[in-house]
Amino acid sequence: MELVTKKIQFSTKGNCEIINLTDMVKIHLSDYNSKTGMVHLFIAGATGGLTTMEYEPGLVDDLQQCFQRIAPVKGQYSHNLAHDDMNAHSHVRASLIGPSLSIPFENAILQLGKWQQIVFIDFDNRPRKREVILQIIG
Amino acid sequence: MELVTKKIQFSTKGNCEIINLTDMVKIHLSDYNSKTGMVHLFIAGATGGLTTMEYEPGLVDDLQQCFQRIAPVKGQYSHNLAHDDMNAHSHVRASLIGPSLSIPFENAILQLGKWQQIVFIDFDNRPRKREVILQIIG
Amino acid sequence: MELVTKKIQFSTKGNCEIINLTDMVKIHLSDYNSKTGMVHLFIAGATGGLTTMEYEPGLVDDLQQCFQRIAPVKGQYSHNLAHDDMNAHSHVRASLIGPSLSIPFENAILQLGKWQQIVFIDFDNRPRKREVILQIIG
Repeated sequence: MELVTKKIQFSTKGNCEIINLTDMVKIHLSDYNSKTGMVHLFIAGATGGLTTMEYEPGLVDDLQQCFQRIAPVKGQYSHNLAHDDMNAHSHVRASLIGPSLSIPFENAILQLGKWQQIVFIDFDNRPRKREVILQIIG
Repeated sequence: MELVTKKIQFSTKGNCEIINLTDMVKIHLSDYNSKTGMVHLFIAGATGGLTTMEYEPGLVDDLQQCFQRIAPVKGQYSHNLAHDDMNAHSHVRASLIGPSLSIPFENAILQLGKWQQIVFIDFDNRPRKREVILQIIG
Repeated sequence: MELVTKKIQFSTKGNCEIINLTDMVKIHLSDYNSKTGMVHLFIAGATGGLTTMEYEPGLVDDLQQCFQRIAPVKGQYSHNLAHDDMNAHSHVRASLIGPSLSIPFENAILQLGKWQQIVFIDFDNRPRKREVILQIIG
């Protein structure tokens, strides 16, 4: 067994933009020798999250609306009373969804469901440069 | 160290059915040689989730009610305007809870809390055949 | 590659107390030989959760308020009708946030974002002794 670390870098618009990372993960996996193992993803940052979903425009909108119900942009937040960045909702959403995700692979193929894609959600309220750390164990 | 991949297959009723997978995970772990390591679980599919809970009927109901508050079955969803499956709420709930979970073991025993069980939640709105991928690293 | 298991023990006040574990994780990592790998954390128990956040008092309050919206302390819960501990909200919150978390390290440094800290949330409604299991793979 070995562990290899890679990085996926990309730009985001923020404001709950949901970005499909599946193809970028597949490219890194195709460079890797082992056929069986696990891909672990981690976002270094307190206003982004990782999960999986069927990546189609309706569900992108539905998931964004759900975050708006759980932690609305214009809610009452203690953080915003003391900080000018006004992104308390971004932080709360990111803590709920979590920064890490692990996906198995077999025969060098990610074992996702037919409609299941790996997504990064940028909860921050401004464009960002993002880096997802990818570790392959196999 | 080695990594072994197994599969747990089962039928579900859907509609937020919560299924206790703990005993099935323990059976696979008992076949494994290493005494110390980690069990990683993953659901291949965009309408299921994995977490842990005290598996008793009251809490099963309480967790189901919480999902109904966060992403109600009869909510307004963009996905449902374009898709006949009418399961947008299933997708949203699954993305929130996440598809992966990892549990340590020592002396070949899962290090769960006294009341803590591993559960799969089938958020889809119809019965399904499900497959959870189990990877043991130790 | 090797896998090492450690334990972090601490006392909590409960009632959604959020505890910063980052320094405790760093201390364990500094004892470890491998420079590259992954730290996996797990809470054995059904009323605690692990995630990351910018650990400042405003956001601690904001995250606590969000949990109060999602699963209020004085909500209607089936569990509480049959159990005197009256902590159904603690269980529901813990299942949503999840018991496990994995963070990569490089050059023996946790790859967290600048403001991102590892936190344990004690959702139970009373003080507890807690144990987080830490596994380092590298």
